[in-house]
This record gives sequence, structure tokens and C-alpha cells, in this order.
Amino acid sequence: MQYPETITKLIESFSKLPGIGRKSATRLAFYTLGMEDQDVNDFADNLKASKSDLTFCRICGFITDKDENPCGICTDPSRDQSKIFVVRDSQDLMAIENTHDYNGLYHVLNGVLSPSEGRGPEDINIRSLITRLSSHNEIKEVIIGLDASTQGEATTLYLGKLIKPSGIKVTRLARGLSVGTDVNYVDQLTLTQAVNGRTEV
Amino acid sequence: MQYPETITKLIESFSKLPGIGRKSATRLAFYTLGMEDQDVNDFADNLKASKSDLTFCRICGFITDKDENPCGICTDPSRDQSKIFVVRDSQDLMAIENTHDYNGLYHVLNGVLSPSEGRGPEDINIRSLITRLSSHNEIKEVIIGLDASTQGEATTLYLGKLIKPSGIKVTRLARGLSVGTDVNYVDQLTLTQAVNGRTEV
Repeated sequence: MQYPETITKLIESFSKLPGIGRKSATRLAFYTLGMEDQDVNDFADNLKASKSDLTFCRICGFITDKDENPCGICTDPSRDQSKIFVVRDSQDLMAIENTHDYNGLYHVLNGVLSPSEGRGPEDINIRSLITRLSSHNEIKEVIIGLDASTQGEATTLYLGKLIKPSGIKVTRLARGLSVGTDVNYVDQLTLTQAVNGRTEV
Repeated sequence: MQYPETITKLIESFSKLPGIGRKSATRLAFYTLGMEDQDVNDFADNLKASKSDLTFCRICGFITDKDENPCGICTDPSRDQSKIFVVRDSQDLMAIENTHDYNGLYHVLNGVLSPSEGRGPEDINIRSLITRLSSHNEIKEVIIGLDASTQGEATTLYLGKLIKPSGIKVTRLARGLSVGTDVNYVDQLTLTQAVNGRTEV
């Protein structure tokens, strides 16, 4: 005996999401059966809209509605036009925004270099960043805010080499202890970076 | 800065699913942006179809397509018509089916008694079970397969009291050690039940 086709198909759709196995997908599919009609229909409409109405900002690569391109950040005159924060994706951009500590512009790479996955400089938004830097003289600093991973590191070094000759200041996020970390328990590499990057009290 | 409205709405829809918080919802919403158009559209269509095309079997309460009611189990003449397996929901029915060890009929309560949540006998499919038993003389045994929880237990006892006077045999799932359990680590109540329900070697 199988489930009716309608629910089987819905289970399959849920299974295609990351981190959701067959059992969770079944649970979610049955859960939606008990939801309000309105909520389920909205869910379906929102899914379709996300494919048809969203695009990437043609300047910075941030996700944006098709009828607002360039995005709200790029067109905001109150933002500091002398700084560009380079991030991996739109979610990382939002993480920086949520600190409420930065008021410059962004550039979203939508990926990092990864030779093992066949992702080179042409596959992420690097060319548009270089064009942007060369056509806007007011940019004084590029802050690279990529993950502290091998791939993030490689991309950071690559961008540094590419941008420095133009005379623009290139900085990166500090390495050191996360808030709440015990010196006793932190890994050796982080500790070395924290020692090397020590600041005056 | 906020995400564009389209993706914010999709994140909200994902957040309404059980066990999915804001952060997971955001991850899932962004993941769908990278999925094939076809898969996302199918997902949306399957969601809508699950609300419009599914219903409960008018005999047993199992979930079924609207154009196949009564369900495939109730209309299958090769099934043993003398046994009814009472389960909490359609997912529990499938769990029993997947053992490939039972070939009788089912009755899906779509809930268990729960006074604390205000769910009484009229709120689950008990009346239809009693009607079914009284109108089909060929039923010889009702197997109650509810969760080994307080609510499952209470519902089992309630059904037992209700059905026994009719002379139909009422059985329930065995209590004892799950496969792989160490006697040393099992809880005391389970051990007591396993001792009381011991079988000959």
C-alpha cells in the first residue's frame, strides 16, 4: 500500500529541500494538510513568486525584487559611498546589516572560489566588482568579509592581489576569539591568530 | 535593511512549519531560489493539490484522493475482512503496512482522546468504528495499535470497554523490550511490562 499520489508528490517535494529526509518530509506534508487553506495557498504562491519576481541587483548582486533593480542599498544616497563590503551571499549581507554598525555599500559575490567544485573567478561576481571599483573613484576601502574557511581564505587573498595595485585600501574581518570563548578551549590556529592580531588595551 | 518582500513572505511561510525556526526558514527560502524552476513550481502545485484533492476515506478515515473514496484498502477484496487494526493516523497505518505482516482492514481515528486538549470521543473517528462493527458481522477481531503514551493508553481502554460487550475480540500491541534494548538500561515500567507479558521459549 502506498500513500495517495497527491500526498506522495508533496512528500517528494519536501524531500528535495536540504536537511529534510523522507521521514521529516512526510511529517511536514501531513502537517500542511492540517494547516489553514489560506496559509497553504500563500505558501504555494510565495514559492512561485520567489522564482518569478526575484533577481539579483545589477550593481551589487544582492537579492532584490525585479521591479527594484538596482537594490535599495545601492540607490540609498545616505550610505557611505566610499566603502564596499564584499560578502559571499545575501544572507551574509543581512548578517552584517543586522549589526547596525556598517553604513557603506556592499558587493555580493554569490559564491567563493572553489577549484575542487570547479568554481573559478568567472563563476562568481568578481568581474563586476573590479568594474565597479575602476569606474567609481570615490571608493576608498574594500572590506572583505568572507568565511574563515579555506575557500573564503583563498578568495580573500585572490581579491587582495587583484585590488591592491589600484591603490584602494583592502581590509578583512579580524581573526581572534569569539565572544564567550575560553582561551583554554580554543583551537591552536585561532589562538595564534588572536596573539598575532593582538590590540592595545 | 530588510530582505525584499517576496523572499520575506516565503521565509514566513517556511517558518509556519513545525520545527523550522527563522534561521532554517531563511536557509530553505534561499535554497529554493537556487532550485530548478520546474521543481519549485511542482512544489507549489503539490501544496495546493494536497489541500484541494485529498480527503479522508469515508469508511476507515485513511487519507485518500477525492476520486478514490472509499480508499484502496477498504475496496481491496483480497484483504482479510475479519480484522480491523485501529491506528491514530494515516502515518501510523503506513508504518503497520510497511511491516508487510498484516493484511486486514484498518480504522484511522485521526487523533486520540485527550481531555487536557479538550478532545473527547466525538472529536475522533470512534462513532464510525462502532457503526462499522455493528453493521459488519464478519469482523472477528479489533487490534488496537495506539502509542504507548498516557493518551494512547486511555483511548485503548476506552475502546476496549466500548467494543467488548459486542463479543468481538479486542487485542492490543505487545509491551516489552524494543529490539536492541539492554535489560540494564530499559526503564522500570517497560521492564515490568516485559516480565508480565513474558512468552514461552
